Amino acid sequence: MRAATVREQEIVIEEHPDPVAGNGEVLVRVRAAGLNGGDMMQRRGLYPAPPGAPADIPGMELAGEVAALGPGAARFAPGDRVMAVVGGGGQAELAVVHERVLMPVPPPLDWPAAGGTPEVFTTAHDALFTQASLRPGERLLVHGGAGGVGTAAIQLARAAGAYATATVRNEQLREQVGELGADVLAPDGFAEHGPFDVVLELVGAPNLAANLDALAPSGRIVVIGVSAGAKGELNLLALMGKRARISGSTLRARPLEQKALAARLVEHEVLPLIEGGQLSVPIAETFALEDAAAAYERFAAGGKLGKIVLTI
Amino acid sequence: MRAATVREQEIVIEEHPDPVAGNGEVLVRVRAAGLNGGDMMQRRGLYPAPPGAPADIPGMELAGEVAALGPGAARFAPGDRVMAVVGGGGQAELAVVHERVLMPVPPPLDWPAAGGTPEVFTTAHDALFTQASLRPGERLLVHGGAGGVGTAAIQLARAAGAYATATVRNEQLREQVGELGADVLAPDGFAEHGPFDVVLELVGAPNLAANLDALAPSGRIVVIGVSAGAKGELNLLALMGKRARISGSTLRARPLEQKALAARLVEHEVLPLIEGGQLSVPIAETFALEDAAAAYERFAAGGKLGKIVLTI
Repeated sequence: MRAATVREQEIVIEEHPDPVAGNGEVLVRVRAAGLNGGDMMQRRGLYPAPPGAPADIPGMELAGEVAALGPGAARFAPGDRVMAVVGGGGQAELAVVHERVLMPVPPPLDWPAAGGTPEVFTTAHDALFTQASLRPGERLLVHGGAGGVGTAAIQLARAAGAYATATVRNEQLREQVGELGADVLAPDGFAEHGPFDVVLELVGAPNLAANLDALAPSGRIVVIGVSAGAKGELNLLALMGKRARISGSTLRARPLEQKALAARLVEHEVLPLIEGGQLSVPIAETFALEDAAAAYERFAAGGKLGKIVLTI
Repeated sequence: MRAATVREQEIVIEEHPDPVAGNGEVLVRVRAAGLNGGDMMQRRGLYPAPPGAPADIPGMELAGEVAALGPGAARFAPGDRVMAVVGGGGQAELAVVHERVLMPVPPPLDWPAAGGTPEVFTTAHDALFTQASLRPGERLLVHGGAGGVGTAAIQLARAAGAYATATVRNEQLREQVGELGADVLAPDGFAEHGPFDVVLELVGAPNLAANLDALAPSGRIVVIGVSAGAKGELNLLALMGKRARISGSTLRARPLEQKALAARLVEHEVLPLIEGGQLSVPIAETFALEDAAAAYERFAAGGKLGKIVLTI
């Protein structure tokens, strides 16, 4: 099979042996695979794939058709349309995925939309509801509202009866982010627009002190991206005074059972809303697998709304 | 009534008007009142009493007899032995407390033990179980194991089937803390003894980075004391990598309904263990109300195991 491959911090297309589905696993003929911030880091050698994932084939999400079932796999049948968050290896013609982390593709989604759906909606749902316990009527602040996870979080919050505010650095994208249902701000001085019950941090440490200032009593900050910096000063007395909570997370490093649980929650609580047309993933641009290197450059350049997806 | 009173950062004994129980409140003839770190801060003008509590009478916990009932108060009868965490005003002959935050005094406790029980066990129970969701079989690290909250937390963790490790700066106190059921360490290099599922931080920011190093995946740090410093550098990438959570809290600033809920949880989950003799509060020393200033000096000097209590 052909696959995007990391070679000396560049993306090239190489031939690899076809993977084989083991116990409980499914071989997927990949049709689309979204790019994510983690792929950029892996290309630079900063975010190695976890054990069990291909070391040199990037790709943390995929959508495609079931090509073959490993021993004991029974949730899906050959030809079924499936999608998943994976530890790596998504940007290839074939990928092996444990059946417990696969989700069905809702009928309205074409392949590019399906390839860009699992990572952003699983990440946003896990952060907002599993970690931050966002409730109806609460106020959410999303830093980095124009990215894939940001656009998913705004829509999920609105669908759950919460209010969404988003900071967006790129002026050109603010109107589109607003159309997703958020009040949109420039990043500077955002704390004046609080208090917020939940802050979803996709930008990093530079916001840490102002996030605490902007937080309501019993507020929660969830950090899932640190592209602008990882280290910042934390005032523990302010944390105590707000009775606040800061959590950090990644999906990638979790054990199988936790990934499977996150997938079940998305199936149960998110896919019906996608099927009903209430939620969607904005697709900024698609690239053929052969043009994966160009897709990475486009992702790294920023300034887009929504996802960059490879079609395979 | 006579009461410990803050005057120009000193503790003096002054006459005050007797308080009167309002709707749902109880007038308590105070018999004992434990000292806490918050009293030291309030004496220095750094931790003002919340609205509704006497501004100049310190004391965040008390035990005594019900002297009179306000309109509608029905949970207790005159003469009942009661105890509570209060927003202030505990170090006085009389105090008014809402009946929903009062707890009965378990029969084995004499007045000094009862006066030193509510704050430490409510704080420790709330931090370990309500905030950190400590589970049987998990490993707890307590920084500041010789203080009142530390000794309560060690005993609660052991009673709940968790393992307790405590750092204790004062060498002379380590053996006694060990007898409560903890492995006891000097503070330096504690991170080598991890991983810990939960860290209870009673010392402050200097431990922040090493706490994260010492944390197990999905670990929780709860900060409820910052005597050694409030500001420290937080590495958000490390937080994400551990899928960790840092929360801060104080009991004092919470609304009545949250304080009442915390009291109900202590009644249900802690008092039976005190009644059964499995948990107790070490009392370091008692002082008469007239000697409150000396009691504060003793507290501030440190180096004690357990509580300093005023008998009134």
